[in-house]
This record gives sequence, C-alpha cells and structure tokens, in this order.
Amino acid sequence: MGGLFEKVLIANRGEIALRIHRACREMGIHTVAVHSTADADAMHVRLADESVCIGPPSAKESYLNIPAILSAAAITGADAIHPGIGFMAENAQFAQMVEEHGFAWIGPSPEHIRIMGDKVTAKRTVMDLGLPVVPGSDGPVETVEAALVNAARIGYPVLIKAAAGGGGKGMKVAWSEGELAEAYQLARGEARAAFGNDQVYMEKYLAKPRHIEIQLLGDHHGTVVHFGERDCSIQRRHQKVVEEAPSPALNAEERAFIGNLAAKTAAAFGYRGVGTMEFLYENGQFYFIEMNTRLQIEHTITEMVTGIDLVREQIRVATGAPLGYGQNDIKFNGHSIECRVNAENPVTFTPSPGKIDGYHAPGGLGVRVDSALYDGYRVPPHYDSMIAKLIVHGNSRNECLMRLRRAIEEFVIGGIDTTLPLHQRIIAQPDFINGDYDIRWLEEWMKNQPAG
Amino acid sequence: MGGLFEKVLIANRGEIALRIHRACREMGIHTVAVHSTADADAMHVRLADESVCIGPPSAKESYLNIPAILSAAAITGADAIHPGIGFMAENAQFAQMVEEHGFAWIGPSPEHIRIMGDKVTAKRTVMDLGLPVVPGSDGPVETVEAALVNAARIGYPVLIKAAAGGGGKGMKVAWSEGELAEAYQLARGEARAAFGNDQVYMEKYLAKPRHIEIQLLGDHHGTVVHFGERDCSIQRRHQKVVEEAPSPALNAEERAFIGNLAAKTAAAFGYRGVGTMEFLYENGQFYFIEMNTRLQIEHTITEMVTGIDLVREQIRVATGAPLGYGQNDIKFNGHSIECRVNAENPVTFTPSPGKIDGYHAPGGLGVRVDSALYDGYRVPPHYDSMIAKLIVHGNSRNECLMRLRRAIEEFVIGGIDTTLPLHQRIIAQPDFINGDYDIRWLEEWMKNQPAG
Repeated sequence: MGGLFEKVLIANRGEIALRIHRACREMGIHTVAVHSTADADAMHVRLADESVCIGPPSAKESYLNIPAILSAAAITGADAIHPGIGFMAENAQFAQMVEEHGFAWIGPSPEHIRIMGDKVTAKRTVMDLGLPVVPGSDGPVETVEAALVNAARIGYPVLIKAAAGGGGKGMKVAWSEGELAEAYQLARGEARAAFGNDQVYMEKYLAKPRHIEIQLLGDHHGTVVHFGERDCSIQRRHQKVVEEAPSPALNAEERAFIGNLAAKTAAAFGYRGVGTMEFLYENGQFYFIEMNTRLQIEHTITEMVTGIDLVREQIRVATGAPLGYGQNDIKFNGHSIECRVNAENPVTFTPSPGKIDGYHAPGGLGVRVDSALYDGYRVPPHYDSMIAKLIVHGNSRNECLMRLRRAIEEFVIGGIDTTLPLHQRIIAQPDFINGDYDIRWLEEWMKNQPAG
Repeated sequence: MGGLFEKVLIANRGEIALRIHRACREMGIHTVAVHSTADADAMHVRLADESVCIGPPSAKESYLNIPAILSAAAITGADAIHPGIGFMAENAQFAQMVEEHGFAWIGPSPEHIRIMGDKVTAKRTVMDLGLPVVPGSDGPVETVEAALVNAARIGYPVLIKAAAGGGGKGMKVAWSEGELAEAYQLARGEARAAFGNDQVYMEKYLAKPRHIEIQLLGDHHGTVVHFGERDCSIQRRHQKVVEEAPSPALNAEERAFIGNLAAKTAAAFGYRGVGTMEFLYENGQFYFIEMNTRLQIEHTITEMVTGIDLVREQIRVATGAPLGYGQNDIKFNGHSIECRVNAENPVTFTPSPGKIDGYHAPGGLGVRVDSALYDGYRVPPHYDSMIAKLIVHGNSRNECLMRLRRAIEEFVIGGIDTTLPLHQRIIAQPDFINGDYDIRWLEEWMKNQPAG
C-alpha cells in the first residue's frame, strides 16, 4: 500500500468519530466526516477537514447507507474508510464493498468479521485452536438420563435452559446430582408453558462470573500482540457501564496466561487490526464468549495504562505497515477506569435527548474526556445515548478511584439528564471499592436502591 | 502533626486555586476558597466546600490581605493554608504569621523563603554548597585594567553592564581581549548618559543560554529528591510561554548530574516542600540563577512525565509525613509540553479581559487542561492574564508535538483574545521542532514576524 493514508473517511458520528479524527490529525492525515441531517452541527463535522451529508436522521438512511458512504469517499478522494464503533463496524459486506471499490478498510478482513459475527462459528473456530468456552450439551437434552450424563461431563452447578428461552423463563440451576432431575423437569415444564416448546439445553452455570476481555492488535504480517485485559463486569442489560484496567480480580499469572493465549489464537487464524476477545471468568477459569472484530468503546482505558494510541496503531497496520514492536515492548503502568456517560435519567434510564445548557469537562492530572458535546449542542434522539466517556488514570487503583470521584464532581452537563450521578454512586459502593463485583452485581445492587 | 489535614484554605484564585482544590479532593481533604468581590462567580469558589470573601478586587486588599486571609482560616477552622503560586507564595512574613497563628503552612520554612528571596544571599548560599553560578566581577569595575583582570578570570565573552541598568542600555559584550577596552568605555558612556551613573559590573556573557530548572521536593526529615528538569527557554519579557520536559538539549549524564547536584544542595540546607532551582545552560555548563521556594506554574509537565501529583506530595510532606520513596523510585516516561494560554492579543499582547462566549477544552489521549474558565465566565481585568494551561503528553517528543498541534486546533475560547494562535505558530517553527532554541529565541523570532 506504501506509506500512510492521506485522507480517511470516518463512517460514524459522535465521540467515536471525534476519537478517530484526533488520531488522524496526530498522524497528519486529512479527515472526511459524514453526517445525517440531524448531525449537521455535530462536533465531528465541525472539526473534520471536509464533510458530506449522507442522508436523513434515520441511521438506516444515513450511517447505514452503504452507497451514500461509498459515494462520499469517492467524491472526496479518500484513501481509506474507518467504520468507528457500531453502525458498519462489523458489517462484513460493507468491509468487502469498501475494498472492492478500491478504498482501504481500516478493520479486519471481511472473512474474519463474518466468522466472528456468527456466535456458533466463532466458538467452534476458537475451540479448535484451544480456547476454552463455557462447556455445555451438544444440542437439546431429551431425557433425565441424558441430562445426568451431560452434567457429569460439564461439572456442577449446571444450568438447564429453554431452547426457545429468554427473560429467565425456563431456566433452572442444579447445584448437585441430587437436584438435577427436578430442575430438569421444572425447566421443561416452564419452557412448555412459556414458549410452547419444551426443548432444553444444558451448560455450566457460572454463579458470579466477571467479564474479562483482551485487547488484541495484529498486523498484516502475522504478528499479534495483546494489550492486557479490561474488566467490564459492571453491566446493565448487557451494556457496559464502568470498565477498568487492569482487572482487580486477576493475578499476574492469569493475566499473562489469558493475554498470551488470546494473542496466540488470533495469530493462528491470521487476525489483523484491533479486536477484542471477551471471556467470562470465574474461579480462575476463563470461558470465551465472543470476539469483537473492531475497536471497542472502552479501548481508552487500555490506552491509559499502556500509553499507546490504539486508533493510530489500527490505522497504521491497515496501511500494511508491520507492527514494529513485540509483546515485551508493551508496558503496563497504573490503573484506569472509564465511565460511560449516557443521556438518560440515572434512575429510570429514560433517554434524555435535548439541548446542552452548560457544559464543562473536568481537567487536571490523569483525567481524560472523550466527548463530542459542546454547550448549546442538541443531543439528537435518533442515536445511541452515550454522550461522553470519562476516563481517569492513577498510579494505583485507589488513586484512580479518588481522582474519578473528584472528576465526576466537576463534570457539568446541563440541560439534560445524564448517568453521572449513577456513576458517582457506583464507585462509592464498598463492593466496587473492594473490586468485589461480577456481571450481575450492578443489576442486583440497583434492585435494592430506593426508586427516584 | 499527626495524620492528614482535614481542611485546607487555598489563598489564591484561578486555575492554581482549582489545581490545589483537585489535589485536596483526591486526598479527601475539605477546601476553603477565598476570593475578592471580582471573583465571587469564579470556579475555584464554586467548587470549594466553603468560601470566604476577603476584600475588593484590588489584590492588595484581598489576595494580599494577610489579616483577612488569616481570619478566613480561623472562622472556617482550616488546619493549613496553601498559598498557591504568586500573591503570598514567597512572602516569608506571611508564612511565619500562618505558623504563628497555629495553621500549618504548605510551603518551605519562612527562613528558606527569605534566603532564596534575596538573589545575593541565595547565590552565596548555593555557591558555598558547590553550585555553579554565572561568574562575574565582585562589585563595580572601576578601571579598564580591572576589567581586563576580571575578564581574564571570567573567560570571554564577557558582558559589561550598568549598575543602574535596565532595558539593554549600558550593556556591551566583549568577545575577546582586543574588544574589551572599547566595550568597557562604551558601556560606561551609555550608562552615564542613560542613568547619570557610570558604574559598571561584569559577568560572563552567555550568548545562547537555555533556561533549565530542576523540580525538587524535600520532606521534614532531610530527604530531598528531584523530578528531573524542565526546559523553559521559550520566554517573552522573562515570562515563560512554552515549557517542556525533558529538555531536548540535555543528555542523560547532564540530566543526572544537575538533578542530583540540585537535590544534594537543597538537602544540605534542609529544604522542605516543593521548590525549583533555575539554571542557565550553555555549552554543557549550568549556572544557578535563582530558587523558587514554591510550586511553579509548569509543575504540570513534570507530573505528566513522572505520573506523580506534586501538589499532593507537597501537601503530604507539609503534614510532616516522610517522603516514603527515594530518587530511584521516580521514573520518567515520555515527553510533555505546556502552553500558557493568556487572555491577550496574540500579536500585540494587549490584555483581553471580558466575558467568555463559547468555551471548549480539547480532550482525548494525553491531553490535560488546567483552567478555571467556563462559558459565560467574565475574565476580570485585575489579575494575571494567564487563563489556561494546555498540557500534552506523548511517548516521544514528536508524538507530543503532533498531539499538541491537534489539541490547540480543538481549543475554543470565545469572546476574548488569547495567545493560542501564537502557540500554534511557535510549535510549527522548524527551530522549535528541532529543539533548537534558547531564551532569546522567541523575542528574536517575533521581531521577524509581520505585525498584525
């Protein structure tokens, strides 16, 4: 490909478009913003060198509008397209069309996006390469006898769950062989009543798993490195709310083990670009759940503890440049926590779009804000409600927590509701302070909070 | 003293008051702001736990009003007083009164403030302990013959300057013995014409010196460490405009030499608290010029490359706590540059107080903003014109420069003039990019710029 890109089209909006713009700017690359009519005044448009309106507010007709985006790249003479996060970032067809139209795609190969986009294929691929997954039955379990055989293989506790399931209906945990027959029958009965289909599967039950993910980066020459883990267990409805690096739950050996294993696995199938392998972690065991073939929102905390601009690295490897460094060159320093600030009521989570009336980001040592907000900006109702990421670094987890507390205190986002008060409360909880939480912690803690 | 302070009164205003507030907050210490009537709406007042109005806008009647400040500390029950930078920070009498009134003084001993506040005493003190100073005549030089003797001892080039001098009048450089007699007579003649007093002194002439300063920190138990150097050679009228750490001019041996020498010297006279020894540097030689017995504006860049919160450390040692670490525990990482943003016209330097109409601080990886500005705030005309510090960190000097460039691009301070455009032009100069500048560079470069 020869040399750096001269102009990159950023096929996204909001803070992530701004994030990519910043990396381009620091590399001396010109940027093209695309935007819907709802985003004409957005910061990512204001800061870009050029911008192209690609459609009406509906994402389907703008940020997901492949012909419009490809046309924008063509008329502006962009060399490459960065999809950001969300929208087209994991659309293999788009990636392929970008390449077929002669633009460089800043992301993994369309084939890898496709493989990892299908959970079944993804699991099979990494299992074959030696990554552990949550053990389970191979298809529906038809009889109590079959359930006993499966449970003996999987190990207790086991979860029996409706094939047609959802919302906890038709889900039962058996903690021992003695409980299995009853749990199996109950699950089938509930499944039949709820879904009219009593087929059930089985898998290992993880009572208090943590969400641990490994940041990977591969070049086009077979080198894959990892940048350590992130603990993203503070979740609500499978959405990450607070992330931290490193995880307070892992020791040095576990950290090295899963990092190296993930990097080796990704190298084995020739992965290139940034990507993340997500695991559940319990009692010293890791279980692969999925791979995200794109940048992640929380890449920022990895940048804070490694000092490496991951978006720059992503763009650099997309030009075909070799990584130029190895695993041992990546050094970890201190602790980082990110809060995802959403335009939502912090108690009811009702979206709160509208005009920003007063905006002030916190500053000072160790405080980073990634946000495309500005005073007077109107948060549109059409898109994701995340409006800012507050990222803090400290030499220790405690320093990081104290800094985060004062940074939240200073953060002013007027005119709309935000989840900042929720973040302030979460990080003040003894469980959080002690690092003693799992993926169910936040929802359980919220259940016990007085409403309003 | 036993344990941390519970409440600290911050006897200052603006960004430095906010800086100290942030450190206190992260230590769990309550803060008391003081303010003039002009600063009632200032951010340092808004964020503090308590605030006390100490007088009218005139600094003499408010921020320099010792009885008012001591009363504010008494009525709020503060344990300690932090003077910030400027105003009372180097007022030995104030420091002594603070202690006599039973408050802890967050700063060095009044005696050290006094000694270092007098340039002659300061030089003699550090010379006696082995620090090099700019060599010169011991008092006025009365004859050409005496000038020749002095010059032979000092080494050429030498500067002959009027005892009553100022503004470059009565200053002549002799580059060799052959030039000395004429330069001496010319200097005396000019001095007589300009000041009615033809007494002249002599000192070594430094043609292209850099301003290199060493950040020191001492505890109450005799330990003094240094945090490396800062290069503050980009100056206009002796005011620092851009600072960087480490200096692009020093090699590792010079760095270790001057750092260790400064720390050893400060330890020899029992210095405690933060302080900075300032040196001129030319041709591998350092010459002590003065010691600042306080925090400095540019302490931020040292924090960025060491990861250590110097204000927290300053507060901690003021409680009597031992440092708890040694020189070898202080690690240096990457490069940092600070721009001092002033409310001034960037060409004429006319002050530009007034109402902020649009404020947006840059964000993202490696970008720090220390500022007490907010949208709608009215910059008062009564005080120093520095309104923000933009501080950037990168793994290399080049990364830092590219990041700084894009951060300045993003920085919006509407409604008033600021020096941001000047900073953008300075850092784009090949001399700056190459690190090839000295304390006269900025003024010389500005002379060659088209006006307006």
